[in-house]
Order: sequence, then structure tokens, then C-alpha cells
Amino acid sequence: MIVILKKNPDQNQLDNLKRWLRSKNIDIHESTGVESTILGLVGDTTTIDINLLNALDIVEDVKRIQEPYKKCNRKFHPEDTVIKVGNTQIGGGNLTLMAGPCAVESEEQILSAARAVKAAGATMLRGGAFKPRTSPYSFQGLREEGIRLLELAKKETGLPIVTEIMDASQLDCFENVDVIQVGARNMQNFELLKVLGKTDKPILLKRGLANSYQEFLMSAEYIMAGGNEKVILCERGIRTFETYTRNTLDIALVPSMKQLSHLPIIIDPSHAAGKYALVPSLSCAAVAAGADGLIIEVHCDPEHALSDGPQSLKPDVFGRLAKKLYAIHDVMGSMEEVL
Amino acid sequence: MIVILKKNPDQNQLDNLKRWLRSKNIDIHESTGVESTILGLVGDTTTIDINLLNALDIVEDVKRIQEPYKKCNRKFHPEDTVIKVGNTQIGGGNLTLMAGPCAVESEEQILSAARAVKAAGATMLRGGAFKPRTSPYSFQGLREEGIRLLELAKKETGLPIVTEIMDASQLDCFENVDVIQVGARNMQNFELLKVLGKTDKPILLKRGLANSYQEFLMSAEYIMAGGNEKVILCERGIRTFETYTRNTLDIALVPSMKQLSHLPIIIDPSHAAGKYALVPSLSCAAVAAGADGLIIEVHCDPEHALSDGPQSLKPDVFGRLAKKLYAIHDVMGSMEEVL
Amino acid sequence: MIVILKKNPDQNQLDNLKRWLRSKNIDIHESTGVESTILGLVGDTTTIDINLLNALDIVEDVKRIQEPYKKCNRKFHPEDTVIKVGNTQIGGGNLTLMAGPCAVESEEQILSAARAVKAAGATMLRGGAFKPRTSPYSFQGLREEGIRLLELAKKETGLPIVTEIMDASQLDCFENVDVIQVGARNMQNFELLKVLGKTDKPILLKRGLANSYQEFLMSAEYIMAGGNEKVILCERGIRTFETYTRNTLDIALVPSMKQLSHLPIIIDPSHAAGKYALVPSLSCAAVAAGADGLIIEVHCDPEHALSDGPQSLKPDVFGRLAKKLYAIHDVMGSMEEVL
Amino acid sequence: MIVILKKNPDQNQLDNLKRWLRSKNIDIHESTGVESTILGLVGDTTTIDINLLNALDIVEDVKRIQEPYKKCNRKFHPEDTVIKVGNTQIGGGNLTLMAGPCAVESEEQILSAARAVKAAGATMLRGGAFKPRTSPYSFQGLREEGIRLLELAKKETGLPIVTEIMDASQLDCFENVDVIQVGARNMQNFELLKVLGKTDKPILLKRGLANSYQEFLMSAEYIMAGGNEKVILCERGIRTFETYTRNTLDIALVPSMKQLSHLPIIIDPSHAAGKYALVPSLSCAAVAAGADGLIIEVHCDPEHALSDGPQSLKPDVFGRLAKKLYAIHDVMGSMEEVL
Repeated sequence: MIVILKKNPDQNQLDNLKRWLRSKNIDIHESTGVESTILGLVGDTTTIDINLLNALDIVEDVKRIQEPYKKCNRKFHPEDTVIKVGNTQIGGGNLTLMAGPCAVESEEQILSAARAVKAAGATMLRGGAFKPRTSPYSFQGLREEGIRLLELAKKETGLPIVTEIMDASQLDCFENVDVIQVGARNMQNFELLKVLGKTDKPILLKRGLANSYQEFLMSAEYIMAGGNEKVILCERGIRTFETYTRNTLDIALVPSMKQLSHLPIIIDPSHAAGKYALVPSLSCAAVAAGADGLIIEVHCDPEHALSDGPQSLKPDVFGRLAKKLYAIHDVMGSMEEVL
Repeated sequence: MIVILKKNPDQNQLDNLKRWLRSKNIDIHESTGVESTILGLVGDTTTIDINLLNALDIVEDVKRIQEPYKKCNRKFHPEDTVIKVGNTQIGGGNLTLMAGPCAVESEEQILSAARAVKAAGATMLRGGAFKPRTSPYSFQGLREEGIRLLELAKKETGLPIVTEIMDASQLDCFENVDVIQVGARNMQNFELLKVLGKTDKPILLKRGLANSYQEFLMSAEYIMAGGNEKVILCERGIRTFETYTRNTLDIALVPSMKQLSHLPIIIDPSHAAGKYALVPSLSCAAVAAGADGLIIEVHCDPEHALSDGPQSLKPDVFGRLAKKLYAIHDVMGSMEEVL
Repeated sequence: MIVILKKNPDQNQLDNLKRWLRSKNIDIHESTGVESTILGLVGDTTTIDINLLNALDIVEDVKRIQEPYKKCNRKFHPEDTVIKVGNTQIGGGNLTLMAGPCAVESEEQILSAARAVKAAGATMLRGGAFKPRTSPYSFQGLREEGIRLLELAKKETGLPIVTEIMDASQLDCFENVDVIQVGARNMQNFELLKVLGKTDKPILLKRGLANSYQEFLMSAEYIMAGGNEKVILCERGIRTFETYTRNTLDIALVPSMKQLSHLPIIIDPSHAAGKYALVPSLSCAAVAAGADGLIIEVHCDPEHALSDGPQSLKPDVFGRLAKKLYAIHDVMGSMEEVL
Repeated sequence: MIVILKKNPDQNQLDNLKRWLRSKNIDIHESTGVESTILGLVGDTTTIDINLLNALDIVEDVKRIQEPYKKCNRKFHPEDTVIKVGNTQIGGGNLTLMAGPCAVESEEQILSAARAVKAAGATMLRGGAFKPRTSPYSFQGLREEGIRLLELAKKETGLPIVTEIMDASQLDCFENVDVIQVGARNMQNFELLKVLGKTDKPILLKRGLANSYQEFLMSAEYIMAGGNEKVILCERGIRTFETYTRNTLDIALVPSMKQLSHLPIIIDPSHAAGKYALVPSLSCAAVAAGADGLIIEVHCDPEHALSDGPQSLKPDVFGRLAKKLYAIHDVMGSMEEVL
């Protein structure tokens, strides 16, 4: 960490600052220039609040050199993390395809969806039981019953299941769930993250609508700091001024996170786009960018169109898409490394 | 709600749609033009999911005329809501000044802060006990003990207290808290909102970093739908591309919310700016824009500068600011209505 | 266009509005519901200012059904536009690779760059002569001389050249330039767009930092309305809250524009990312998403690193990347259509 | 400027870098820590491209200490700039009220508007002659004729006039214009800024929709670097995810710019809000935040409502608002300084 002091800092305040830093086991390298003095802080600065230093009258600016996250940082863990889920693996060169309906609605619906996505090439089943809804007047999901139905579908098809938790009090229901999803709105629900850090389930952590890469990794760090290192990062679009798409899929997150972290990365094109016709192109882009997998909404209830989300694909479309994704994945793997 | 159909819609699908709408007690007014057919839906459309309709193959676009919120909607409740807190009132032409330190740190600190802000003109005491922190390695607040210390300060000064809840499991600690704050990161923690809707405490609901006016009101609606109508809206800055300020204070929210809703509005200039030197100007602007009050960080520990947040004012500064705010508030009230 | 009136509109104002609309040759279909009255406007509504209607006291809301752009609209021109440039074609299933240095600096530099990118697989040469720079104190480009050097490079390698115009007064210099680029900052420099609409050169129009899809297409429409229909759309990243990348590449623009317009789409991953290590992944993603080509910064001056932009690739890296891009393009073309 | 080097930098590259810096008359203070080496650059670093340094393989990060703008920087010019316009002054504690219609439409319209806004308290007349319009099919303004009509209105009322230029080729028309406005879309039209830097007219420079404070000041610097130091900064809202208002008025720009620069600041609440009912509150907020003035759309053609913009006030409303604004300005000036 570099602290840039203002010109002619008050000596008392400077002494106070140095004493406080040393009490935190930080070494100080001072370098005095014509225009300003610089303190180089050496030691474990992850516990130092950068806002606190910035607040001091004598400080012009503070700059981190070390990232504030450790456990998810590729610098300290150069190998890709690979997470075993049932018979499949997430990360490490595998292509994971999670597919299924937006919400679990009935036994028949989830069973037929599970069969269809399995046949079409999916490696995991997704489906919402606890549903975060903007309006208190909207359907809030089948909740416990929804998870029971997902378990049935898992039993029949063998597909591992991923579904969302909304509150720590629901954790008991997730015993047979393979991957617990934390939704974008809960990315900084720190009390929930702490509880999940005490479990041994893989966590699919979705990036918040307006959260930076660093905040995203700090939320992963919350889970890992509790002891659970099985975190899967998921980009699902950020909020920008553009309204043609529901959100803006930040495709550059994929290569950026591959630099910063060793955790696997999944892309959710369905929620990012909000329009099913954009999902195939975004999915192909994600695989070409190096993502470890996708989570895609698929519905299979053509007679009763009202149960579809606007971003859901039909199973035959998903099937053709899956073939294309595996083909791109193969090409990417077979070519010489670019960098 | 207006549904604009695509040219030459499939008749079967159209019949399905109409049947489904009528099953929800919605009347349909059809108007056929040269280019497109329009369905006007009449009835209680708050339960209809606009995304669902948009998803249909035969639908070009859907437009709400009625807002999806009812209880917080000024159309159905033209009078300003006024919320009694201790001996003070929030809303209805009163100017509320909530002030105090970022975090409760010790008995001495919170007591001296409470005395200082009261003397300087504050009407309520703020202070964080449960602290949402981006990093798992940062100080997480004194938690239960912090609330006990706030209660001491309330007892001594008579100032009502406002402090943040982070999880429903903490609710028992808030028995003697006057106003429960929901932080920006939890604005869409719907499980928490539902629990708070069952209490009878005033709730200070902060707008999320990237949430629209409508989403903000829908979160207020979650609390009110549970039976608790004492909701106070709080704007604390949104996330934009600008980095000079920590967030961008959306001052237009004040007159906009006064149009849309009857709930009182508080502005938090300290977190919006992230720099104490900007707080006075933003506070004056908020009062001039018509806000019902402010929540301002004040610290009173000049000897130990490291405990300040970068956005905190000292008590003497806050005192001069408070005088100015009351003066602006008086001028605003004494002049002829503009519109 | 749909005009939703307020409840009980003033009859005089409504008559005025109807008279004015009819004077513009617009037919009006009126549909009176319980809650509101709706006017469906039929005719050429592209000349009607939606803000003007919204301003009227009697109007609740206005909604366009027809897009305000015509010449670039796929609805009126279903076939992809293919633009011939030298011996190459942009659009129509071809993959265009524009490559070259950020700025033209010297004869030797641009000649060696041109040779290198041609050998590595580029189909066009890029290079800046007139340079838009945030600071008045930065190097502003070689200007006229820079274009002369690009012409030399074109003569030697046969590669068509693309370079940026900053003001209509520079147009005379662009006689031998194959594609004229309009930078992001000038996307809404309407006087410049009008002048370019009178030329017969292909125009590479970059999307502004914070411009919507519709504004982007309206700027293309400015050029096309003048008679020049050879417009190439270029996405180069939008400004968001994220600072790890210089801008956020909006990959969903590719499939979205393919729906809305018939114009070819080029992606600029170098300026979007601002970091060369991200360029390969973003390039692969763009081709997989269906882009018609890329414009990539390549430098070939390893001895004099100070002339590189942070986002430039070296020629050998570009060469390996080009192979991969052609391979992905082939796979995409060989597979069954997904939708 | 601080350059943070990567661990164990290549010695050749480091020597190259140092040689290059010294060739630019920059002194180098080197400070070697355990984790990284830091170069402190002393001298005039405004000509050094921070992106260039960041691009080097051996560089981890670069941080400016000195701002890259000089002439508009308060550090080098502590006194407020006051700009004389006709008999009025902008800045220095004066409150400037520019008012008038969105577009000049006819002699009668602009004369009656000028009389009305003068009577209501305006100190300058605004009105668009060259109109930047998103659509090529919309009315593009009366252009030269519009400026002639503004001159008539100035002659009759004595109000100085402010109107927008869109291209350097239009400059001859602006001989009798008192303040030349540069619109948000042209904030980074650097060729236009350079031409305006050679004039001696006051320039009202509007902030671009997505431009940072630093970019805004750099555009002011372009004009001032040419010799014209009469620049007035104007905030008119930035583009964010919120759609209830047309743009988001960034009120914190006012106190921030007062710290960073000595130039006067004008707020445009009409274009920021896009809704006339929000204009009064935003105007009051701007004055309370310390702005030097406002530019407000006022129309006075109640019979012909279609000529109004949705953000325009009627003269009587503007009159009541002006009274309130002067009252707030008086209170602000009469109170003790807060900081």
C-alpha cells in the first residue's frame, strides 16, 4: 500500500499515523520528494481500511498494490480450482451446461424439463424454488416443495441440481441440493455469505447488478474465509443505461477473472439478455471468451406459453445450441495458445 | 395495462391469452389498427407479470399505465405520511436531522457523540452496531453490545435512535431501537423486508446502489404489504461512472418521490459524497429540494483521527450546518408555492 | 405510435392535438377504456417528436411502435448489407480483420506494421492520423502527413486503409482513404454526419460511450438520409461503473443489431478492454457472437516500447489470434442454425 | 506522478524508461521496497501519457499526483473567475438566471419570450438557433435566421444572449452573441474547442452525458490553452440506469468543481429532469449547493402548446421560482461559512 502525503504534513499527525501503522505490524518505507512524501507500507495490509487512511487530513491519496482478497486470489493459488459436483466437474477445462426452467411449478413440469435438458446435452439441472420477486404480489415460488420436486428430478435423471437460497433460515432445505446459488441481489448479504462459508456445499455466487470485480471477489472471499473454498463465480449482466437488453452482459469479466482468480466462471445469458433470441449468440460468445460453463433457462411446455419467461429457450433450440457450444469449446481447446 | 400485439398474431395463442387474462378477472378492450392490434387490460393488473406477457410470441410490447405499487402510491393516498418517533415527527413539513458516528465504538464515544449532536441541533441519533463491510477481514461492528450502548445514549440525551439491521435473526436486539434502518445492499433482501413488514417499527429503507425509483417503491411496498406502513425512504447515492465522489447523489429523487409517493424522504449526503467537504453543500441542496430530513455522519474524537470516516463532519461544523439548514427550510416554507 | 391520455382530458386541448396530428397526415384510432383513452396514430410517425407529445398536459404517456429509423431498419431491408472495400467485402458472412497501430508515427513504423499485419492475416490496415486526445497537451497525430503515410502503406501492401476524421474541414485529405472512421466522441456530431452522408465512402461509425442502440442507429440514419448507405457499425465499449476494464464491451449489441438493422457490425476489443491481455478473449467472443469483423490494435516496435498503447498486441500474438478467429468463424458457419 | 514497478523488472527496459523520462526533463526519485520499487516523477508531467506508462511490461501501476489540467486548476489560480457579460457578471457571488425557449421559432415568439423572462427576473436570454437533434428527420432549428432573431430580442430587452454552436464553420454567425454554448454532445469535439480557444467570447461548456469531472476540466483546458480563459462550466445531467428522469442531475459537481477549479458553474435543470414539474426543486437545490446560476427553459405560448418542450416552465411559474431562488441565494450568503 502506498500512502501519498500532502505537502508539509502536520508532524504530530504524521507521528500518530506511523505509530498506529506499526501497531498493526506494518513496516514503513518513507520516500521524500520535492512535491510530496510517500509512505510505502509493507506487511499484511488486507486489514487496513483504505477509506480510513484517505480520511486523514495529512493524506493526499492512498493506493493499494496488494489486492484485499487472498483466498480467491490467483497470485496465491496459481492452479485453477476444479469443483466436483456429482459425476461432473466444474472448471479445469470442462464445459458445464446448467439448464432448466426459471421456476419449479409442478412435478410434471420439472420432470419433463429435466428429461428434456438431459437429452439435449445439459450436465446439471437448474430451477427456482425460492424466488426473489420485485413485487410482493408476485408468485414467490413453491419454496420447500419446489426443492422436493427438484430432488425427484435429480433422482430420475441423475442430473445434479442447482437452486437459489434467499435467507440463512432456509439452509436446512438444501441438504440434497448439489450447488447452492446466491442471487445477484444477495451478493452483499454478508450474514448469508458467512453462514454459507460454514457449509461444505459448492456455492454459485452471482455478481450483483452494480458490483465491481473487486467487490465480487470480496464476496467470494467472505465464503472462503469461513472455510468453504468451493465457490463458482457467475456473471449475469450489469445495470447500465441501455434498455434494449435487460442487463448488459460484461463478457470481459471472463478473461479478467481468469487473471485475478482461480475460481471457475459461469455465464448466465438468459437473465443478462432478457430476450430468448439473444441467448444463443451470448452463449457462444461466453464459451469463446473462456467461460467454464453456462446456466441457461429452458422451458418445455409449449402448450401453456404463459409459464415461460421471456428469456427461455425451448428444448430443441437448446439442443442445437449445446452442439454448437461443444464445437466451439473443442476448437478453442485444440488451437495454439494466443498469449 | 396496454398489450401491443404483433402483426397477424396466431389466433390460437391470442385466444389462450385472452382466456388466461379473463381468469384473472381482467377485462379486455381490443382496438384493431392497420399496423397492430392493441389490448387494453382493465382491472387489478398489479398481479400480472409484465415479463410474462412480453415473452409471448404474439406480443410486440407491453406498457403499464397503472403503477405496480399501491400502498405507497400517492394516487391512492394523497396526504403526506407523517411518522411519529419519540417526541419528533418525520414528514409533514418537519425537518429531521439524524446525526452521529459511522460505527458505535465505545460507551464514551457514543455518549459524547450523542451529547454533541444534540447540542448542535440534531433530532435523532444514528450509529452503526451491525456493520456491513465489503471485506470479511474488516471490523464488523460491536453488534448486540453496540445497540446496548445506543440505548444508553438515548436514555441520557432523549434522542431517538436509528441503526441498521442486517438479518432477520437480529430482530430481537431492536426492541428499544426507534427506527430500524435497512441498508442499500439489503434493499432487495425480500425475506428481511417481509419480516420487517410484520413489526410496528418505523423502517428507514435505503435505496440500493443501482435500483430504479420503481424498484425502490416496490421494496417499500413489501414492508407495507405486511402491515407496517411506517416506511421512510432514504436516498444515499447511486453508482455511476464518476469516481470523484463515492456515489452520485440523485437529488431529483426528492421531487420525483414527492409526486409518486406519500412517504417521507431522507437524504444521506455522507455516504453519497464519501468526502466530508462536500457534505454541507449536498445537505443544503437536499433541504432546498424538499427533503424531509438528513442523516449525517458526525464524529467527535479529534484526538484520535483514525476513527473518522472520510465523510464525517466534526460537531462544530455540523452545528453551523444545522443552523443553515433550518434557515433554508424556513425560507422554503415562507415563500409562495411555485407550481 | 400510441398516445395514452390522462383521465378526463381537456376537450379543447384534445381537439387541438387531433387537428395538429391530422395536419401531419396521421390517422387517429381512438379507443376509450374505463381508466384511460388511447389514441393509435397511423401513418409516417418518424417526423413526430415523442418529447413534444409527452409535454402536453393531457398526455399520460407516449409509446412508439414503429422505430424512428427507416433506412438502416431491417424491417424495410431484410437482406444483409455487404460493403465492397478494395478486393474485400464487409458483411455477408465474410470475416474482416482490420489491424494496425494506434497512431501513425513514421514511414518506417507504418510500413513495417502494414507488412506485419498483412502477413499475420489482416484484411485491412488501421492507423490514426488525426487523433482525438483528451488533453490539449498530448500529441495530436501527424494529421495530413499521417494520411500520406497510410497511402504509402496501402500502395505497398494492397491493404485497404481505415482512419478517423475529426472535422468536416479535413474531408479533402480522405480522397484515397477506403473507409472513413467516425470516433465515439463524434457519434452525435450531426454536422459531420451530414457532410459524410454526401460522400460515397464507406463510414465506420463508432458507438458513443453512453449512447443507446436507438441513438446509434439514428446516427447511422443521418449518414444514410444524406444518400450514403455504406455504413458499418462499430461497438467499442460503453462507460459503466466498472474500472478494471477501460470500458465495458457490450457483446449483446451484436445479435441485437442483427435483429434491428441490416448493416455490418465490427467490434473494437482493444479500446473496450484497454488491456492487451484481454483482447484475444474478447475477439473470440465477438466472432462467436456473430460480428462481421474486428478492428484490433497491433504494434511492431518491440525495441521502443514507449510507442505502444496498453491495448496493443504484437504481430506474432495477432497472427495466432487470427488463426483462432478464422477457426471459430468456420465452426460457426458449418453448424446448423440454432433459432 | 508515481510509477509502481513490477517485482524484479527487466533492467534494460527500466534503463530505457528512465532515459526517456529524463529526455522529457523529468527528475526521478527511486524508492525500493520489499515488494515493489516506486519511481516518483518530478517536473511537468502534464505532457506524459499515463496510458503509455501503464502499457509497459515492467509497470504495475501509475498514479497521478498532479492534475493534468493547469489553467482551469484552482491550485494555480485560487481566486474565483468572474466573467463580464453585457452589464451582468457570471461568478463571484452573483446569481445568473439564463432563461428562454428551447428553440427560436419566430420573431414574435422570441420577442415575447424575451420580454416575459426579463420581467420575471432573468438576467440573460437563451434560445436555440442551431439545434442538435437525434433524428435527421426532426426540425434542425432556424440556424442563421434564428441568431438574427435573438439579436433583435437582445436589442429590444437589453438581455445578453446565449446560444449553441454545433460546428466551427458556423462561427461567423456568432459575432453578436454574448455567450457561445457548446452542447453536451460536442464536449469532446476537440477541433471545435480549439477554434473557440482562439475567440474572445465567453464559452458555456456543457458536460457530456458520460464524461468525468476530469474530462470536463480537460475540455475547458482545451479552450483555455488556446488563449480564451472565459469558460463557464455547465452541468446538465448524466446518463444512468434511472429512466424516470431524462438524465441524473449530478448536484455534487457543484461543490466538487468549486474545489478543483476557479471557473463559474451553471446548472441546467430543464434538460437534466426532462419534466417541467421537477425543475423548481432542482433549481432551488442548485442554488443551495452553491451554483453561480441556472439556465432554464421557459416558453410563453400557451395557445400553441405543441411548441413546448416537456421540460419548459411558463413565465409566471418562472417568476415565482426566480423570487425563491434569489431568497435562497440571500440566505446562503448571509450565514456563517460552514467549513
